[in-house]
Amino acid sequence: MWSVGAPPEKITSLQNPRVKQLVKLRDRRPRDEAGVFLVEGYREIRRALEKGVALQEIYFSPEWFLGENEPALIAQAQAAGAVAFELTKDTFAKVAYRERPDGLLAVAPQWKRALDELKLPAAAFLLVVEAIEKPGNLGTILRSADAAGCDAVIVCDPVTDIFNPNVVRASTGVLFSVPLVVEESARVQAWLKEKGVRTVATTPAAEKIYSEVDLRGPLAVVMGSEQYGLSKFWLENCDVPVRIPMAGQADSLNVAMATIITLFEAVRQRAKT
Amino acid sequence: MWSVGAPPEKITSLQNPRVKQLVKLRDRRPRDEAGVFLVEGYREIRRALEKGVALQEIYFSPEWFLGENEPALIAQAQAAGAVAFELTKDTFAKVAYRERPDGLLAVAPQWKRALDELKLPAAAFLLVVEAIEKPGNLGTILRSADAAGCDAVIVCDPVTDIFNPNVVRASTGVLFSVPLVVEESARVQAWLKEKGVRTVATTPAAEKIYSEVDLRGPLAVVMGSEQYGLSKFWLENCDVPVRIPMAGQADSLNVAMATIITLFEAVRQRAKT
Repeated sequence: MWSVGAPPEKITSLQNPRVKQLVKLRDRRPRDEAGVFLVEGYREIRRALEKGVALQEIYFSPEWFLGENEPALIAQAQAAGAVAFELTKDTFAKVAYRERPDGLLAVAPQWKRALDELKLPAAAFLLVVEAIEKPGNLGTILRSADAAGCDAVIVCDPVTDIFNPNVVRASTGVLFSVPLVVEESARVQAWLKEKGVRTVATTPAAEKIYSEVDLRGPLAVVMGSEQYGLSKFWLENCDVPVRIPMAGQADSLNVAMATIITLFEAVRQRAKT
Repeated sequence: MWSVGAPPEKITSLQNPRVKQLVKLRDRRPRDEAGVFLVEGYREIRRALEKGVALQEIYFSPEWFLGENEPALIAQAQAAGAVAFELTKDTFAKVAYRERPDGLLAVAPQWKRALDELKLPAAAFLLVVEAIEKPGNLGTILRSADAAGCDAVIVCDPVTDIFNPNVVRASTGVLFSVPLVVEESARVQAWLKEKGVRTVATTPAAEKIYSEVDLRGPLAVVMGSEQYGLSKFWLENCDVPVRIPMAGQADSLNVAMATIITLFEAVRQRAKT
């Protein structure tokens, strides 16, 4: 099985310091202190490796494997510099945060990207999300941005840490492929204005319907938080407020659903230019 | 607190037969045998009452309440014929299936609606979903159909029971407002043909893009299952196969996301007629 590097160290005790550290990394403070985060699952780890993320460690437990491809993925991680550790079934159950673990868990370095590091095309297509609370929603939103071909996602005034395990999970690893910046709303708005990017923000109070507005050219779609919607700052400082017409219950659409509707209307319009 | 009916019976023991029965109702067989299902949470129970669902029982535990409106909702359920039971904190923790219970759980009768019971307008707007596996996806899809103003949702060859607690939950109670029919694919297809409803089915293999097809008039949007996509039957028997163009990872869009994109493009086109 081990074609590359040394055979992995085996961890059998629930008291092993590495096991304890992996459990701690579910919380933000220990994550930030160590400057790393957890990546669990075959698909997520594969995507990290595809994008050249330098995984520091890879933990595995063959008794949890679902398929045949796990050893090759572990070897690939080792070849890229990750240290491998083999865990017993029970030990892995303790470090896994998924309900149905697949026997693979990696530790990746956190990163921080500044607005000015983003390389934007002439007709930039950006998604700005404000103070999203639920990690699952943020992950789903990243998937939508990836599917829609957004050039970047900018997370303003975050309530949820982008390195929360449930963001990684709900994003299915897309976290590694969509350029992501965390920044204050005021700075983001000033930067977009300077770059000539029009901001279209969704709010139920808007007069214009999202699909009746021109969404071509340099564009940032701005979405508010689950509970409070768009902040006063963005309501006052966006270029065009729009709304999504709704037929049913007032709260049928959550923020992730509203995001994907707006992004794909932009995709539709932009394909026509 | 009790302005209507008798003061509720109190349940303090985890061994109470009603407590045991509520736990059993999480599984399909006992649900079907009893012909009922669980509705947990303030919003979901409120929506059931708004739609005139004759709740049989309402269980509550004030120590779990999140707000001030719970007693009024319980009184409303009692006035509509539900028998109320007050549970201790521990007893309610046992019967709740949510991670964060809000102290309200009701038992509602199951129903069965046939295709011919649906009352369709001239330009019917339907959603057909095939063999959806995850209750959470089915619930989210129901929310989308409600927001888009679909006249009905038809669930073909279900893998997930529409009365699964997680469908009720993910639908946020919209299960009670969107007309829902469960039926075999072949019957559904024949019925739609007879009614002159055009079927537009999404599949990655299609040539046409969903937004370049006319989605006005009598329309059924057909969505396949998470894992297998559309079945051979629907691929061969739909009127127009369409695809959603994707920029990112091949599997960025899940079935719930693909559904909402397609439904809201139909809403956009239909608003223009």
